[in-house]
Amino acid sequence: MKYYAYENFKNDANALIQEIKEFNPQAIIGIARGGLTLSHALAEGLNIRDVQTIRTELYDAANKREELTICGRCSFGDVQRVLVVDDIADSGDTLKAVMNYLACGASEIEFKSATLFYKKTSVYEPHFWINEADDWIDFFWERDFKN
Amino acid sequence: MKYYAYENFKNDANALIQEIKEFNPQAIIGIARGGLTLSHALAEGLNIRDVQTIRTELYDAANKREELTICGRCSFGDVQRVLVVDDIADSGDTLKAVMNYLACGASEIEFKSATLFYKKTSVYEPHFWINEADDWIDFFWERDFKN
Repeated sequence: MKYYAYENFKNDANALIQEIKEFNPQAIIGIARGGLTLSHALAEGLNIRDVQTIRTELYDAANKREELTICGRCSFGDVQRVLVVDDIADSGDTLKAVMNYLACGASEIEFKSATLFYKKTSVYEPHFWINEADDWIDFFWERDFKN
Repeated sequence: MKYYAYENFKNDANALIQEIKEFNPQAIIGIARGGLTLSHALAEGLNIRDVQTIRTELYDAANKREELTICGRCSFGDVQRVLVVDDIADSGDTLKAVMNYLACGASEIEFKSATLFYKKTSVYEPHFWINEADDWIDFFWERDFKN
């Protein structure tokens, strides 16, 4: 398990901003909770005010396979390019489901995705990512704040 | 202007978590963009998965006074206690407008607010806050990420 400190995050988020800026997104959808701090950083760096969130829940229906449910509604007005943000594409299930869900609801909008980490075994590869993950990542936002 | 570094934030967010935990909120509404990183930290520390966002826009209607518009819809299911999060109550206009807006829409829910900073001249005082602001705060999320 590798501690991912704020200083690493700062460098990686700035590298992502350089990758993303040609896409020129007008809105950000952050996947809660993991994508929230990165959404904030990218929104500041890319000068985007419209930041919305979405989250997924795994329901373990009795005797059925687990089902991924998407919670939250996004509204885009006349926005044409939207960046979907999460911390990591690990299994890739969340991002894949969210990207499909968004594309179904708004076919005239171009959605691209960005993460800090991407695992080669993920079923989904984000458009923009910085690090390949080969270990469990101990993100500072999961470590530094305790009840 | 005072630089507010991640290390300060870490300490203050943990202090906020201690203040807030008796309220035991079930969902968080982060005010974008300023409240997003704090929303993430509080959600992790308080073990809250339901994080939503709202944002405000100032429209300068010709020859009229500026008008504060609230963008974003929140949905709460059977949630009873919601924490509204922003970085600072400065003029207090944003938080006051958001709290009024939320209270109108859902009278059966208890909303409380939390910020890192509070200015004595604010028209609204958050339920939970840590520092009194007497200078302009240069938050790390506004300084560290550049296009």
